[in-house]
Parts: sequence; structure tokens; C-alpha cells
Amino acid sequence: MTEPIGPIDASRVPRYAGIATFARLPRIEEVERADIAVVGVPFDSGVSFRPGARFGPSHVREASRLLRPYNPAQDVSPFAEAQVVDAGDIAVNPFDLQEAVQDVERAARDLSGRAQRIVTIGGDHTIALPLLRAVHALHGPVAVLHFDAHLDTWDTYFGAPITHGTPFRRASEEGLIDLTASCHVGTRGPLYAKQDLEDDERLGFSIVTSEFVEEHGVEAAIERMRARIGDRPLYISIDIDVLDPAHAPGTGTPEAGGLTSRELLRMVRSLADRDVVGADVVEVAPAYDHAQLTAVAASHVVYELVTLMAARIGRERAAG
Amino acid sequence: MTEPIGPIDASRVPRYAGIATFARLPRIEEVERADIAVVGVPFDSGVSFRPGARFGPSHVREASRLLRPYNPAQDVSPFAEAQVVDAGDIAVNPFDLQEAVQDVERAARDLSGRAQRIVTIGGDHTIALPLLRAVHALHGPVAVLHFDAHLDTWDTYFGAPITHGTPFRRASEEGLIDLTASCHVGTRGPLYAKQDLEDDERLGFSIVTSEFVEEHGVEAAIERMRARIGDRPLYISIDIDVLDPAHAPGTGTPEAGGLTSRELLRMVRSLADRDVVGADVVEVAPAYDHAQLTAVAASHVVYELVTLMAARIGRERAAG
Amino acid sequence: MTEPIGPIDASRVPRYAGIATFARLPRIEEVERADIAVVGVPFDSGVSFRPGARFGPSHVREASRLLRPYNPAQDVSPFAEAQVVDAGDIAVNPFDLQEAVQDVERAARDLSGRAQRIVTIGGDHTIALPLLRAVHALHGPVAVLHFDAHLDTWDTYFGAPITHGTPFRRASEEGLIDLTASCHVGTRGPLYAKQDLEDDERLGFSIVTSEFVEEHGVEAAIERMRARIGDRPLYISIDIDVLDPAHAPGTGTPEAGGLTSRELLRMVRSLADRDVVGADVVEVAPAYDHAQLTAVAASHVVYELVTLMAARIGRERAAG
Amino acid sequence: MTEPIGPIDASRVPRYAGIATFARLPRIEEVERADIAVVGVPFDSGVSFRPGARFGPSHVREASRLLRPYNPAQDVSPFAEAQVVDAGDIAVNPFDLQEAVQDVERAARDLSGRAQRIVTIGGDHTIALPLLRAVHALHGPVAVLHFDAHLDTWDTYFGAPITHGTPFRRASEEGLIDLTASCHVGTRGPLYAKQDLEDDERLGFSIVTSEFVEEHGVEAAIERMRARIGDRPLYISIDIDVLDPAHAPGTGTPEAGGLTSRELLRMVRSLADRDVVGADVVEVAPAYDHAQLTAVAASHVVYELVTLMAARIGRERAAG
Amino acid sequence: MTEPIGPIDASRVPRYAGIATFARLPRIEEVERADIAVVGVPFDSGVSFRPGARFGPSHVREASRLLRPYNPAQDVSPFAEAQVVDAGDIAVNPFDLQEAVQDVERAARDLSGRAQRIVTIGGDHTIALPLLRAVHALHGPVAVLHFDAHLDTWDTYFGAPITHGTPFRRASEEGLIDLTASCHVGTRGPLYAKQDLEDDERLGFSIVTSEFVEEHGVEAAIERMRARIGDRPLYISIDIDVLDPAHAPGTGTPEAGGLTSRELLRMVRSLADRDVVGADVVEVAPAYDHAQLTAVAASHVVYELVTLMAARIGRERAAG
Amino acid sequence: MTEPIGPIDASRVPRYAGIATFARLPRIEEVERADIAVVGVPFDSGVSFRPGARFGPSHVREASRLLRPYNPAQDVSPFAEAQVVDAGDIAVNPFDLQEAVQDVERAARDLSGRAQRIVTIGGDHTIALPLLRAVHALHGPVAVLHFDAHLDTWDTYFGAPITHGTPFRRASEEGLIDLTASCHVGTRGPLYAKQDLEDDERLGFSIVTSEFVEEHGVEAAIERMRARIGDRPLYISIDIDVLDPAHAPGTGTPEAGGLTSRELLRMVRSLADRDVVGADVVEVAPAYDHAQLTAVAASHVVYELVTLMAARIGRERAAG
Repeated sequence: MTEPIGPIDASRVPRYAGIATFARLPRIEEVERADIAVVGVPFDSGVSFRPGARFGPSHVREASRLLRPYNPAQDVSPFAEAQVVDAGDIAVNPFDLQEAVQDVERAARDLSGRAQRIVTIGGDHTIALPLLRAVHALHGPVAVLHFDAHLDTWDTYFGAPITHGTPFRRASEEGLIDLTASCHVGTRGPLYAKQDLEDDERLGFSIVTSEFVEEHGVEAAIERMRARIGDRPLYISIDIDVLDPAHAPGTGTPEAGGLTSRELLRMVRSLADRDVVGADVVEVAPAYDHAQLTAVAASHVVYELVTLMAARIGRERAAG
Repeated sequence: MTEPIGPIDASRVPRYAGIATFARLPRIEEVERADIAVVGVPFDSGVSFRPGARFGPSHVREASRLLRPYNPAQDVSPFAEAQVVDAGDIAVNPFDLQEAVQDVERAARDLSGRAQRIVTIGGDHTIALPLLRAVHALHGPVAVLHFDAHLDTWDTYFGAPITHGTPFRRASEEGLIDLTASCHVGTRGPLYAKQDLEDDERLGFSIVTSEFVEEHGVEAAIERMRARIGDRPLYISIDIDVLDPAHAPGTGTPEAGGLTSRELLRMVRSLADRDVVGADVVEVAPAYDHAQLTAVAASHVVYELVTLMAARIGRERAAG
Repeated sequence: MTEPIGPIDASRVPRYAGIATFARLPRIEEVERADIAVVGVPFDSGVSFRPGARFGPSHVREASRLLRPYNPAQDVSPFAEAQVVDAGDIAVNPFDLQEAVQDVERAARDLSGRAQRIVTIGGDHTIALPLLRAVHALHGPVAVLHFDAHLDTWDTYFGAPITHGTPFRRASEEGLIDLTASCHVGTRGPLYAKQDLEDDERLGFSIVTSEFVEEHGVEAAIERMRARIGDRPLYISIDIDVLDPAHAPGTGTPEAGGLTSRELLRMVRSLADRDVVGADVVEVAPAYDHAQLTAVAASHVVYELVTLMAARIGRERAAG
Repeated sequence: MTEPIGPIDASRVPRYAGIATFARLPRIEEVERADIAVVGVPFDSGVSFRPGARFGPSHVREASRLLRPYNPAQDVSPFAEAQVVDAGDIAVNPFDLQEAVQDVERAARDLSGRAQRIVTIGGDHTIALPLLRAVHALHGPVAVLHFDAHLDTWDTYFGAPITHGTPFRRASEEGLIDLTASCHVGTRGPLYAKQDLEDDERLGFSIVTSEFVEEHGVEAAIERMRARIGDRPLYISIDIDVLDPAHAPGTGTPEAGGLTSRELLRMVRSLADRDVVGADVVEVAPAYDHAQLTAVAASHVVYELVTLMAARIGRERAAG
Repeated sequence: MTEPIGPIDASRVPRYAGIATFARLPRIEEVERADIAVVGVPFDSGVSFRPGARFGPSHVREASRLLRPYNPAQDVSPFAEAQVVDAGDIAVNPFDLQEAVQDVERAARDLSGRAQRIVTIGGDHTIALPLLRAVHALHGPVAVLHFDAHLDTWDTYFGAPITHGTPFRRASEEGLIDLTASCHVGTRGPLYAKQDLEDDERLGFSIVTSEFVEEHGVEAAIERMRARIGDRPLYISIDIDVLDPAHAPGTGTPEAGGLTSRELLRMVRSLADRDVVGADVVEVAPAYDHAQLTAVAASHVVYELVTLMAARIGRERAAG
Repeated sequence: MTEPIGPIDASRVPRYAGIATFARLPRIEEVERADIAVVGVPFDSGVSFRPGARFGPSHVREASRLLRPYNPAQDVSPFAEAQVVDAGDIAVNPFDLQEAVQDVERAARDLSGRAQRIVTIGGDHTIALPLLRAVHALHGPVAVLHFDAHLDTWDTYFGAPITHGTPFRRASEEGLIDLTASCHVGTRGPLYAKQDLEDDERLGFSIVTSEFVEEHGVEAAIERMRARIGDRPLYISIDIDVLDPAHAPGTGTPEAGGLTSRELLRMVRSLADRDVVGADVVEVAPAYDHAQLTAVAASHVVYELVTLMAARIGRERAAG
């Protein structure tokens, strides 16, 4: 039997039928080797406000039933360029943050042995830390492009050093990120103190705020973020709350004044010439979602990320 | 590798993690042989009011993540008594009722070759007809115990002979059911005409109305339904709208004044000594469900049906 | 052209099609004379907690699309026994309670000239006062059977003598009700003071509480309420919050521990031998309803009330 | 009695009162002749994902209660310029796509005899085919301006040639549309294959994608679409999913990255100098709507379409 | 200024106005001494399925705005019998279960110095352990009456000894409960293994299942539970999921077939002659609640518990 | 004990814990003197369509739990610049519009004695009239910057001169506003008649429509509105329906085609150099809100208004 490639044929099996893998792609168990793996991390014990992102992976997969094989915006058929699979969920302990973070790192490293690149669906943002550790193990310090309403470079919360508000501080301290090439996009809303901004810069990030996008436009924002990240190996971390609550109600710490899904998709697509070595889309909290609004946006974002990776793989193969 | 049996261990993999098979049971592809298969039919082209039951199977599976291996109400560990698997969904054409009905029958017959007994998750009630055809092929005319707010023995609707309002009329006409041993339970609400009741009786059904349950109690209702169905091979068809809308808002044609989920579960459990050769739970329409209310009820009902079958299989094996 | 009778044929026009009159019945403008009129009063300026019952009439009409012509529980075809029509809505001023109450009374009196009996869909309970005034004008003091979680015999609220908490005190004071034959059913939940109960009794009501139903059963409750109301001309006023919030979330002042819709329907049907000269179903607040749960219950209750009236009219005609 | 014109006076009858015709306009039965008819087609048997658009017409009408007589954005009082009426719903068979399509065509032709121009509220997009047939019968091939997230020029789905994904392919093949003047606006999201775009062009459409709008702005998009459609008789078909899911969650196949309602209204208004001979607004699926979000948008779009037509009629009358 | 007693006057300040303390009672800071304190514990890091109970206290308080001063079902004016106050929330660390449990115990002990009896609003069921520790410090081993769908006597989950599934095993092991007088009421649904029941009995609990209530009625259930608990100092712990999901959708691990709110209220009221020294109502998860359904039920249950305590205090005072 | 300043420390008390004052700020009773008071007016008896804004203040407060002390967009720490407190709710009679309006004015005047500047959370827009009367008493005629989908300068509705559609007509007639410096921003949607626009201009308002923003951009809109209002003492009144329904579904009279929350926040921030002497944010109707979408937007807008005032106070203090 030939190995399955790409989504199940929707003209034979309706898209609402069958068990929901991401984009109705093959499960990793069904294939010999994979280029790109989409994996879930159902974990939300690191959240400081509304929990529920533990149900994010299955919710995003359900919404991803609508995805199709050809991406006209990038003019790429990602599942033809690369073998893309769903690697299921990484099961982690909800009662012990330290253990959970270790488990995610271990599982991500294991998965890296079976798939060249990984896109992770969260789960809360805590998981970016172990994911960056796993990426660092392969690639050394990477540029980080971080879409989020929040900086996520706080220090501790209730004395806890690892929560969904701290992954990029820890990552910076651990030397996982390239201090000259990392960037937040879409931050907005009040902070605890002005000091937060100073800390953040020291940790290696520049910022393209949501207000910047509003005042100068998406194109200017893209230019700034592209200039910052350069052409280094790039990790993209997308907290879905970078979108305005109108576009992503289903999340834990919503802030008014965010990006539209159209803007975010454009920004992601603008990176077609970069080398995206890993990515995550986190903080989808289904209990607050309506009509899969947030999950549809998240699944499209994952799809664009996969397309970036697949096109790169295709070009590398073609270049031989 | 040994064959998987029963749900994935919830103390190792949280119940919200992983792809949702029914009760987190093995997929049929993972096992050599199965005793009982739970299968979905995502189809709702036969509905006359609110559509959406095409999303029923995945919705019920999501809610079934909470089910556990031991059923104290029946004092049975169903997955220990029998190999129970999830057989996925039967993919059918949403645009052609006739073709869809044929496809369901064919797939059910095929599946009967791989699993002794089948519990089907709908989809709308149209599918009871092809399922009964498949059961009839194996068992001849069966007693039908039909839980529903409606009779579903209407003749045609817009000239269509096969819709979700007609399966039991067609089944009766085709000789699929035992005319002396079939019974509706829980019907209520207005009818098109008094003639509907007369037709229904002629087609072989007696009725235990929801009003009867209200006035005489559940025990009396159980006695009447058990007396009627006797001890013949039994097919149980449960339209979730037999529950009161408070217990099952997520359905297409709600009628006030129905059963509670506690009553329905008790009624199903009362059949522990009968030979349930097939069953379906239909008309769960997720778009109208809230907090998985309807899906939780439906998944528990499926679980009780599976337990009935598994206990029977266990007894038969023990009896050798 | 012959005058339309009964609902539009659902096998020709799907029940979700066309403009929603109650039960898809003719509008009063389409007929020469009517026996029973269903009329809406979209008004909620008398509420003390959650508003929104102004949208009640259209919401209940939408849910009533599912009603059919034959009522098996009463064995009556109400629309064959009597010409039943939808009289539309009584338009009233939302900014002036006094004027609104006068407008409802005037409109109800006018409508009484065109239809023998009226069932009103609220709107909040304030409207029971003008409706009782209009009924009193025709019938003198009537027995009042009042289903509600609350007594609605408070005196004033913020100095206002006419609100949704006071109609039956005002009605009693005005001599509109028979002090020996009126009854609350289903009351429960905390009161402002024990004095409320004493006042209530003095105003002419006896009480069958929800706790009584729980402890003694529905049959005992029916006996008590039937004994109390005797065989006088009867006005039935049903605040949908008499149902448990599980059965009627869409209401303004929910109280835990109420009736099920099955119990309420049974209680209403138990009055088949009484002379129901008017009725209302009030306090459906759609913004808090889910999946039309409350509206389905309310529409069924209206249907049973219409059936009671229609059967009486049929019997009177037959008796000639 | 003089014939009713325009909405019921909202200072006399609150906008939440009375039966909901579109914009509280007269029903077609109440008038002698109409210039513009708004008609519903409650039909969704052609959908490939989430059903429910059969409830679209009544849902949009409910939200249209808020519309008022003067349109300041176009500086037109549409109901003063033309007699605009609600023609109710076209009742069609939900169980037979072919018959349904024929019924819609027949009814649309009949209605054309009673109203010069028609705006149709769907229902799913399948109905655009029979509506275009009816328009073609009067006007010959028309320019089609098609707002949608999807091309809707697929060939077959499950072997069915007529579904909500195929109307414009069929229309093109049947010669109903002007191959030099038709245009999609707002398409986005993945396709089955690149071939889809080539087929589409061959069928006569040019495309203004949602990405084009994002990159070049609304004004540039308007220029392109206006240049394409020229000044021929124009049919406008608006799938509400052209809006971003944030603006139209209540639809069947949502795609991230769409238009805002403000952009869509502007685009529609930009056609004030064109001759709109027919239009539809489809794919509103209420079960997925929240707070009437989608229905408010749809009702405003219908209102703008009616204004375009009414202004044209007014100008033609003035021109004599 | 005199000390405030009882709810703010609703005829002066509407019940929807002002900041929501429980039942609009005084805050503990406003009074000199309190007899009964209602306190919240916004904590849900111990849950194994749906999180969100951290928002439970504020949600229940919002719904408690509807409570009034006189409880007719118990014929007690609780706020006249005792000074009842809202003690606000106990703030605990969401990232460290051990620390959180210690913090709750410490705060509960502190509060015991300022109020004779405490009713706690959760939060997840983990908090019952520290609450029982605090009660034990004052009263020694207490009888525990535990309303729940689940036993909550599991051992560990992911190796964690303290979660919302284990409080009563830990409490039993620590000698906090009277092994001869503790009882679960309302349990139902599948278990991990039959062994769970045996463990549970060994830990000191007898069980009145939901199935027992269905088959033998509420009165028989009350008799059994009262016989078991005797007349010792009693701690009542109510997991709101003891209610059927229809009555309490807003909870984390719903099981079909539960109690109605009417039954639960009756059961609680049946304890009027017992000495309730502490109580909790837990597992209200607002994100899954609809129209405050669950919160209304929970707030009424808290009110009945407070009434039990207040009446006892009143009787003790009267007895001098 | 020192007086509390600013929000409760979120690293000690989780933001979801404790009773919700605005931004978790001190209550006015806790402080000696305040610079800025945030106060609620839970009142919606002036609405003409969907009611429910009476629950607005508590809903916005709940969402404001997420606000933090430093506003990076304005580079101001508002709670450090000024003592900002929550003054609770103004309790008013829901049954008498005239009395309610007088009560709001009286309470606002009283509060002005205890806090220099007030930001009010509605409630419906009726309350802008008494708030403007109170502001006028201190400052004389003020410039009014009015963000709204509607003009709110209608004359009467059902004969009522004071409703949520009339405050600015009455205010203009009473001489409360500066006729040369007042401005609507964001109006859109149909009007009753063209005359409405003429009346509006006569009453002293110029208009920056939502269509203007769409066509000319936010910057041009800001310039126009700033030019109009000049540098007079300014009252800002923000009807949350100025936002598109996608951004503010939870409101009473939604109109398609509105502002995004990002645009609104930018517009408000553009007024950092003006002297904002009072402000309100009204028409948040929680029953129609989803996932606190509207409340998050409203709470951020209130926060920006408070920041404007606090920065001014800080500058004035610094200037001595």
C-alpha cells in the first residue's frame, strides 16, 4: 500500500466526516518519514487568567477540516512539496509545571528525529520555552518572531519562574534566542510598569506594537520586523491573542485593539523567503470561542506556517 | 506488539489529549478482530427542521473522552468483556438521499463482517432504515425498541419516501421489524393527525408515551416496554430528542415534556437480560448544543448500549 | 377564496419557511371571525432584574413553527374545533408604564370583540393586570390559576404600584379575581419577608409550592389546585419561570428548584373540564435562551391552553 | 384604504413589535404593484460543510427591524423612491436539489411579473443558479459581481453538478453571464488545486482577492471591480462569508482574512451609477451567529442593494 | 453608624446595582463580628478535565443578587438569625498545588477566628482537603456528607496526591473524617475500576447513588443519608456536578443522569436538625454556564446551607 | 494604615480573585480624597430596542480585572499620577425615567464634590443628559465629543422627551453644550429622515461619519474632530455601538460598518493634550456579549479616558 499524502479527498469523504487530524492529513504512524509535523500540546497550567487552552489542539484540528491543498496566497501546494503529518498530542502532567516543561522538551526532541520541522498547536504560551530548547539543540540560537498582545518576558508570577508570561525571558536568559534578531509584533495594552519595556529590550527584543501597525500600516510593520529578524534561522511563536478579541475571542487574556486575521496572515506570508525552523500557535481557549472563530483563524495561521516550511523544503529539494 | 484494549490510560495521557475516538478506545485498524464497533454516520440530509446532525459523531466522540472502563450501574467492565473499537465514520453523499441510504447499508454490512455488533452514532434518523436492513440481513425481523419524541412512521414529506420522519414505516413495510414486538418510548407533542397513531399501530408499534411515564412512573413504563419487546433479538434506536430539551437542546426537532437523562439511562439499563443485536443514537445537532450537554447524554447512552452488548458477549463466552 | 384554517401545510411549505405566525396559523386579518386569538405583548418595562421579554412574542412564534394540528395528549385537533388565529402584537409605549397598561387593556378589549378567547404571549408579567381587567369586563371576577416561581403580589417597588411583581395584588384590590378560587402553583425561592405570605393569603390566593410538588407529587398538586379553583370561569397566567431554569433559562428572575416542562404540561392538561376564559404565558426573555429551549416550552404551553379553549368551544358547539 | 408604503412607524409601533417583514416593509399581498421585492429562499441542501442557512431569511428579517427609511451614505430614501415590499419565502423541497432549483427559478420568474427587481435572501449559494436563470430570461447575459470567500466555480461534489460550490460554473456554461464582465471579490483561503483558478478564468471571471484588498486598499479594489463589470446590467451575488468570520461568524464555510462589514458596504455603495437588475445575499447560518452579528451585516447589505435599485428607479422615473 | 445587617434593600437599590457580595450581604470588613462567613476560593489548578472554576466565586456571587432575606422552605430568616457576611476571596497560587492547599488551610483557620461557621464557594474540589483540615482543627473528625457525581477518593493522578479527584481519600487517611458517618450522595457514571468502590468503602464512605434516587425516590435517599451521618458535627461538601448537566452545565466533569436542583435543595433542607459546622459548594465553571443556570443553582444551595447554619445559631442563642 | 493606591498587586492576588472594582482599584470609601472616580449607572429604561445595559457596569468591571498600571500607548502610569477610585453604582429607579434622570444628576453632583473628574459606565445613553447637567454646573457649556453609531439627537419617541435617542438634543436645547465645538464621530446606518441631519447641525454638532473614516482614514478623522472641538473643556461620551458589531456585539442597537477597537483607542488617545472634564462609556449590554468581547473593549476605553484625565492632573500638579 502506498503511503498516504495530503488531506483525505473531500469529494469522496465529506470534510465533516472522519476523525480530525490537522487538515485531514495522515497521522504520523501512517507514514515512513515526514518533513513537517503538526503536533498538539494540550496544556494550560501556566495561565494567569482564563484557562482552557488545554482543549486548543482538538479545537483547532476540528476547524482545520476546511483547509484545502493549494495555497493561492503563497502559490504553493504545501502537501505536494513536503510530507506533512499530524503527530498527535504530547501528553503532559497538568499538575506539575516543571515536569510538564521537561516532557514537552523531550517529546519535541524525539519528534525532531522523525520530522524535519515542527509546528506546535498549544496549549498556553509556557510551552514556547521547551520548544525553543528543542530548537536550540538543533540550530543554536534562533531569531524569534513573536506575535502577541503581551511581551511574555515577565520574570515571575507568584514566585513561579515558568508560566505563560515568562517563556521569552527564560529563553533569553538561557541563550536560546538571537539577541540581535528577535522581535515582538502586535503588543498592546497596559503593562505592570515601564520597566517591563526596558527589561524586554535588554532581553533582546525589539517591538512592533499594534499601535505602530495602526498608525503606519501593515507594510511598514512588515518592513520593520523583517529588518529586525534578518535571514537567520527563524522560530515563529504566535499567541492568538495578537488578534483583536473580535477575531479571537477564544483566548485567555484578551486585549482590545489588536490585529485583524487578514493582517496577521499577510505578515506571516511576508516571510516566504526566510528559513522557518520551528513555530507554534498558542493560547486558543475553546470555551470562550464562538462558532470556531478563533480556531478558524488559528488553523489558517498554522496552514500558512506549514506552507512557508513546505515551500522552503521544496526549494531545497529542487536545488538538490 | 500486543493489541490495544480499552481506553488509553487517563493517568498517563490526560483525557483531553489525543485524537478523540469513542471513549478513547482503539481504532478498528489497530486491532485484529472486534466484538463491538462504534461507528459514526455524519449525515443529516434527511432532516425536516434544524440540520446539523452531520457533526454529531465527532461531537459525541469529544464528549466521550470522559467515559471510564467500569460501569457500576450495570456492574460490568465492558471493554474487558469484549473488544470494543471505534470504526470511524461511514462517508456518505450529502446530496443524494437514495445513494446515501444505500452507502450506509453497504458499509454496515461490511462492518458486520469485522465486528459482531454495531452501535451507530448519527447523523439523522434516516440512517435507521439502512441499519435495520443490515441487521435484518443477519438476524431476520428484529424487535425494535425506539426511543423518540416522534413516531417516525410518517409516509412521505415533499414526496420523499426516505427522510428522518419515515424510517420505521419503510422498515415495517419491508418486513425488517417484528410486528408483534416493536415499541416507541417517550413520544409526545402534537401530530399531524390522529390517523398517524392508527397508521403507526398497523405498522407494528405499540407506544409508551412520555405522558405515560409522567403519570405512571418509569418502572411501569419499563414493564410495558419489556413486555412488548419480549426476548427476541432486539434493535434499539434512540433519537436523542426523546430527552427533554433541557437535557438535549442540541437536536433538530425538540419537543417539550420529555424524559430526563436519568430516566433514559435507567430504561436502557433495564434491558440487561435482552439480546441487543444492534443500536443507534441519532439526531445530536452540535450547533444547538451547549457545554456538550447533549453530547454528554448521548455518549453515556452509547456507553450503556455497549455495556449491554459486552455483558452479553461476556456471558456467552463464559457459557462457552 | 375560502378562509384559511389551521397551520400552513408542512408537507408543501417547510416549517422553517414563511413568516412566523403562532403555529403558522392564519393572521387575524385573513379571516372573517375567530374563536381564539393568540396575541403578543412585546413589553418589559416592568421588570426588576433581567429585561428582554419584549422580544418574547417573536421568539415564541419562531419556536411554534414546530407545532402540529393534532394534540394526542388531549385527543383534540384544536384548529379543527375552533378558528384559531394570530392577532399580531399589541404595540405599547416602553417608556410609560401607566400608559402601557392602559393600552394593553384597551387593545385586549378590542380584540375580545373579534375573538371569543385570547391567549397572550408576553412580555413581562405586568401585563396580567390589564388582561385581567379586560377579562373582568366580560366575565366579572374570575378564578386565577397562577403558575410562577414568585407570588407577584408585592405592593410597590421603587414606589411603583404597577410592575411585574405586583399584578395580582392590584388585581385583587380591584376586585378582578375570585378571592375564594385563586391559586399560585410552583412558587419557590426566598421572599422579602414572611409577611409576603400573609399578605398573599389575604389577597385571595392559596399556594401549591414547588416544594409541595417535590414532596407529594404532581397528582396531589393537581388535586389541590383543581379543588381550589373549582369550576368557575378561569384565567390561567403562566410565568415561564415556574419551570426550573434548566427548562427555562430564558427568563428574567430564575429560581432553582422549579417544575419540569413535563409536569407543567400535565398540570395544564388536567384542566380539560374547566372553562378557561383567558390565559397568558409571560416572561420569556430570548437573550438568555439557548437553542430555543424556553421558547419551545412556552409554545407548547400556549398550544395546550389553546387546546383547552378549542375543545370547550367544540363541546359547546356540539351541545348547540 | 391607501396602500402601505415603507416601514411601519417606529414611533408608534416599537421596532421589536409585530411580525418581521424585511425592514418592517409591507407584504407583497398588501400592495397593488411593487418596484422591488425582497424574497427569501430558505434552503440549504446544497451545502458541503455547516448547514443551517435554511433559517437565514427569518434571521435576517429579525435583524432588519432596525433599518430606517433614509440612507445617508447614499443620500437616498429608498422606500420613497420605489415601492419596496417583502414577498415572503419561496418554499422548496429540501430533499431534492434538482426540484428545488427548478422551483426557485419558477418562483423567481413569477415574482418578476409582480416586481421589477428582486433581492433574494438565502439560503445557500446553490440558489444563485436558478436566480440567474430567471434574470437571464429577462435581461440576457448579465455581468455578475460576486462577493465571496470562495470561487463557487467548482465542477461537481460527490458527483452532484448543482451544489453551493458550483452555481457560477453552471451559470457560465449555460451562457447566463457575460464572460467579459464578471468578477469575484474577496476570495481567499486555500483551494483544491491551482487548476481551480485556471478553470475560473476560462468560465469568465476575474478576481479581486481579499489579499489584494489588504495590500492595495479598498479604493483600488473598487476601481478594478468597476472596470471589470463595466456598465452592463449587473447581478450582484453576495455570499456573506466574504466578510471575515469576526464580522460574519454565522455562516457555513468560514475563512480567515476576509473583509470588514465597513469595506463591503463601501464596495456595494460604490455601484450607485450601475444598473443592478438583481441581487442575492446568501449563506447566513443563524445557528452559528452570535447576537445577530451576521444578520445585522446581511440586513444592511440587503438595504444597500435595495437603495441602489430604488435610486435607479427614482432616476428613471424622474427622467420620465 | 450601626453595623449593616442583611442584604442591601432591593426596593432602594436595584438588585443588579452595586458590587456583588454574596446575596448583597455586608463585607466582613464592615462588621465587628460575624456568625457565618461566605468566602470564595478562586482556584482550579487541581482539575483533570475542563478548567475554569477559578471564576466560580464571582460568578456565583453575581447570580446571588436575586436571593432575598426570608427562606420560606425552611421558614427561617437567616440574616436575622445570624450575622452573615461575605469574607471575599482567599487568594492562592495557581502554579503550585501544595502551596495553594496550605494557603487555603491557613486562611480558613484565620477566618474561623472571625466567624463561627464558614461556607466556601469554589474553586475546584481540591480545596475540600484544606477546608476539612481547618474544620478538623476545631471539631475533630466530622461526618462528611458529600454530594457529587464522583467519589473523589482516587489515589493519585499523574503522580499528584492532591487534586480535585482525591480530597476525600487524603482526608480519610489524615483522620479528618468520621469513618462511620460519611456518605456520598448522587454519584453515578463510569469508574476506572470496581476497586474504586472497595477503596471508597474502606476509606469510610457509604454511597447513595443517583441510580438509587431514581429507583427509590428522594425520600428513601434522604432517610439513608440521614441514617448514615447521624447527628455528629457535619461538614457538607457539594460538587455542583451532582446535578444533572441540564441543571449544571457549567462544571468541569459533567456526567449524565444526575439530580435535579429541586431534589438537591430538598436533600439539603432535610438536614435542618443537624449541626452543620462547615460547608462548601465547588466546581462551578462559568465558561460552560449558560444564562447563569449553574450559578443560580449554586447560589440557592449556598443560601440553604447558610440557612441551616443560621437557624442552628438562632436556636442555640434562644436556648441561651 | 496607609491609603490604598492603584490596583491590588496581581502577583499576590490573582486578577480573577476578589470583588471586582474597576481595574481592581480602591473603593471610594477606602480613601480620603480622590482625583478621578469611575462610577456605574445601571439603568436601561431609556432603550428603544434591546435592553440589558443595566448589567453593563458590573460586566465592564469584571473585564477590567485585566487592566494593569502602566499605559505604554500614552506613556503614563495613570494611578500614579492621580488617585483613581471606583465609586460604585448610582442606584436609580428603573420604572420612572424622569426620576431616574434627576437621581443621576444629583448623585453626579454629589460625587463631583468628592472627585475632581468622573468617568461613568452605563447604562444606556439616557444618562448622558444628567451627566452633562452636572458637568455644566461646574464648567458651563462644554465641548462634546460623541462617539456613536447614532446621532442621539432625536426629539421624542412614543412622546417621551428623554430616552437614549435624545440626550444631545435636550442637552443642546438646555445650553449645556458648546454649539461651536461639538462633534459626532462614527455615526452610520440609516436614519428616519434627512431632516435628522439638518436638525442635528442646528443643535450644534458636526459629524465625522464612519464612512469618512473608511474613505479618508483615521488620521484625517482625528484632525477633523480635533479641529472641531478646539481646546475647550471637553466631555467625551462614547456609545460602545460606535464600534462595529464584530467588536461590540453586546449592545442594544448594533449597526454594521463601524470602527474597530484599535481605531477607537487611537482616536481617544489623540486627545492627550485636551482637558477632559468628564466622560461616559455607555450601552454595553452583557446578555448579547460573547467572551466579554464588548466589555474588554469598553474597559480599555475607560482606561484610556482615565489616563487622559490622570495625565492632565499630573501635569497640572507638576506645573503647580
